[in-house]
Amino acid sequence: MNIRKIIRKSVQNAQGYTPGEQCIAGYLKLNANENFYPVPEKILEEVKANLFDSLALYPDSRSETVRDVAAQSYGLKRGNIMVGNGSSELLSLIYRTFIEEGDLVAMPSPGFTLNRSMVSIQGGRLVEVGWSDGYQLPVEALLAVKAKIIVITNPNNPTGTLCPINEIEALAQAHDGLLVLDEAYVDFAEDNGLKLLEGNENIIILRTFSKSYSVAGIRFGLAFSSKETIRNMLKVQNSYPVGKLTEVFATTILKKRALFDSTIEQIKLQREVTSKELSTRGFKCTPSQANFLFVKVPAGANGADWYEALKKEKILVRYFEGQGLDDCLRVTIGRSEEMKILVRSIDGCLQHFFKSDL
Amino acid sequence: MNIRKIIRKSVQNAQGYTPGEQCIAGYLKLNANENFYPVPEKILEEVKANLFDSLALYPDSRSETVRDVAAQSYGLKRGNIMVGNGSSELLSLIYRTFIEEGDLVAMPSPGFTLNRSMVSIQGGRLVEVGWSDGYQLPVEALLAVKAKIIVITNPNNPTGTLCPINEIEALAQAHDGLLVLDEAYVDFAEDNGLKLLEGNENIIILRTFSKSYSVAGIRFGLAFSSKETIRNMLKVQNSYPVGKLTEVFATTILKKRALFDSTIEQIKLQREVTSKELSTRGFKCTPSQANFLFVKVPAGANGADWYEALKKEKILVRYFEGQGLDDCLRVTIGRSEEMKILVRSIDGCLQHFFKSDL
Repeated sequence: MNIRKIIRKSVQNAQGYTPGEQCIAGYLKLNANENFYPVPEKILEEVKANLFDSLALYPDSRSETVRDVAAQSYGLKRGNIMVGNGSSELLSLIYRTFIEEGDLVAMPSPGFTLNRSMVSIQGGRLVEVGWSDGYQLPVEALLAVKAKIIVITNPNNPTGTLCPINEIEALAQAHDGLLVLDEAYVDFAEDNGLKLLEGNENIIILRTFSKSYSVAGIRFGLAFSSKETIRNMLKVQNSYPVGKLTEVFATTILKKRALFDSTIEQIKLQREVTSKELSTRGFKCTPSQANFLFVKVPAGANGADWYEALKKEKILVRYFEGQGLDDCLRVTIGRSEEMKILVRSIDGCLQHFFKSDL
Repeated sequence: MNIRKIIRKSVQNAQGYTPGEQCIAGYLKLNANENFYPVPEKILEEVKANLFDSLALYPDSRSETVRDVAAQSYGLKRGNIMVGNGSSELLSLIYRTFIEEGDLVAMPSPGFTLNRSMVSIQGGRLVEVGWSDGYQLPVEALLAVKAKIIVITNPNNPTGTLCPINEIEALAQAHDGLLVLDEAYVDFAEDNGLKLLEGNENIIILRTFSKSYSVAGIRFGLAFSSKETIRNMLKVQNSYPVGKLTEVFATTILKKRALFDSTIEQIKLQREVTSKELSTRGFKCTPSQANFLFVKVPAGANGADWYEALKKEKILVRYFEGQGLDDCLRVTIGRSEEMKILVRSIDGCLQHFFKSDL
């Protein structure tokens, strides 16, 4: 038989999501917003002491221990929390819990394109609504979609901009559906949406350990929402979503989150320093509240040209095609040493590749 | 708003799967078919040497390294392999790739009940078809369902019985749809279905590291199938399905699978020894090709009674309700020391709890 004839149409037609280019040995990876600061030694020691406990046994099927620790860490209750194999698993669980064939999801655009492939695989339709001027929340346009779900990445990816939390709350209250607030980058921002959970049953907040907590490799994410939503999402999730190695790591980090404060501050500082350096070189930087900069490249070349030029300098960055973003780049903010290499390489590019244009 | 009104009906109506009872400190856990033999020291050493490499970076988004090592280990090609967060993630991906609202899945019964909750969450319907006498494959009855997918756990859970591989192949060839062969326990059996992949595009084989490889805690499973099926299932799977810690562990195990041969043999030996011990005590043991025994308890009490009695002896086993299995227990085969405790405790139960009945 031809297997193709029984594969779901929405899967056959899907492109699949393309994540940031893989690491190439010897290259500086500024394309996936990872964190260059290592996990604090105090945490690593505690992790190593507990990592090999009873690996022959299944983990806690509902991750109750790590959820309890997360509850304490974020001032919530276990029933309002679930954990996942990265926040991307949790995003996918949201669509699998709420979206039926043909349902609409609305997202400000440009936004996190992973939502596109996830919604379409589930058989739903993502409606992308342009940001208002200066990346203001397009409240009326989002509501006008009459979507079952509105999804907002805040700070937004790829722009790095933060919508004021009171505007998000007003949107949630005006919206007759679910509002997903993906706060992957929120630890680098000046505000967050945690306070909205109280009294807004229709909000889900997502967090990840891949950015501020320096462990993209372990795959750990959190969802905060109403008991009813979490209870139903847990039914859709597989048993044992988080392996024991990740569980030990995440639990230890959750207990000592404050140990990351200083490196988060360093990244915020480098964000300002790098933004200034790039501005003086003709790049237009969008004010960022994330661990990356979204920049318009100087006239005369586009984002793809810069991606190629920087790749020759052994630096990987992210460029975009379409949506009016052809002249944009997204660049991860690292430590001072990585940012110095970036600025030096940009100078090299300006001199060699883009000389005639400036 | 009331969030309930927008949750998918199939999710609201779902019960969710109940995995084996969690470990209780000080209890002997014979209820989830884990493996009591530790991972060989040679493997652990190699794992420890590589475990903390670049955790700040995302893993390989398509797990290509571990898939390449698996390809070598099982004599397949990377394109015919995908990995998952346990084989349960892969099972769920199969349903999400193939099952539309209302589609049928057929399974011999009693079978692995996780399929029930997964199919219903996806909006499909699982049709359970009784095994023929002596747990023979009910070929005609399975085909008569005209299901999109036939799913067979082989050796079967909870019965431990193995369908001959040539019968599975004949079924796959007669079936105008997909055949899923869940081989979670196959390393304890005398045959396996790997040879069926060549020439049968409609077969998917699942494997797990939770049983024979002693690492249920790390969450690692494999799916083998045609390139076309794997390509489509990868679109449905989230990026970075397997964290780096698990990836390092699994890669090391895959390279040295032969190191597990002796403990697998020990478990098979204990299976025979325990089967004989239980038989002399009035239990009727189904011949098992897995790392557990499926037994009918002696007349006068049912499986739940024995579960309660053994729990008082600090041993956890699995009992069943309905499907004519009320007088059955499923008991994991451990090492000689665990099996001695089991037999001694059964003797205690026979003496104290079930005395009047025998």
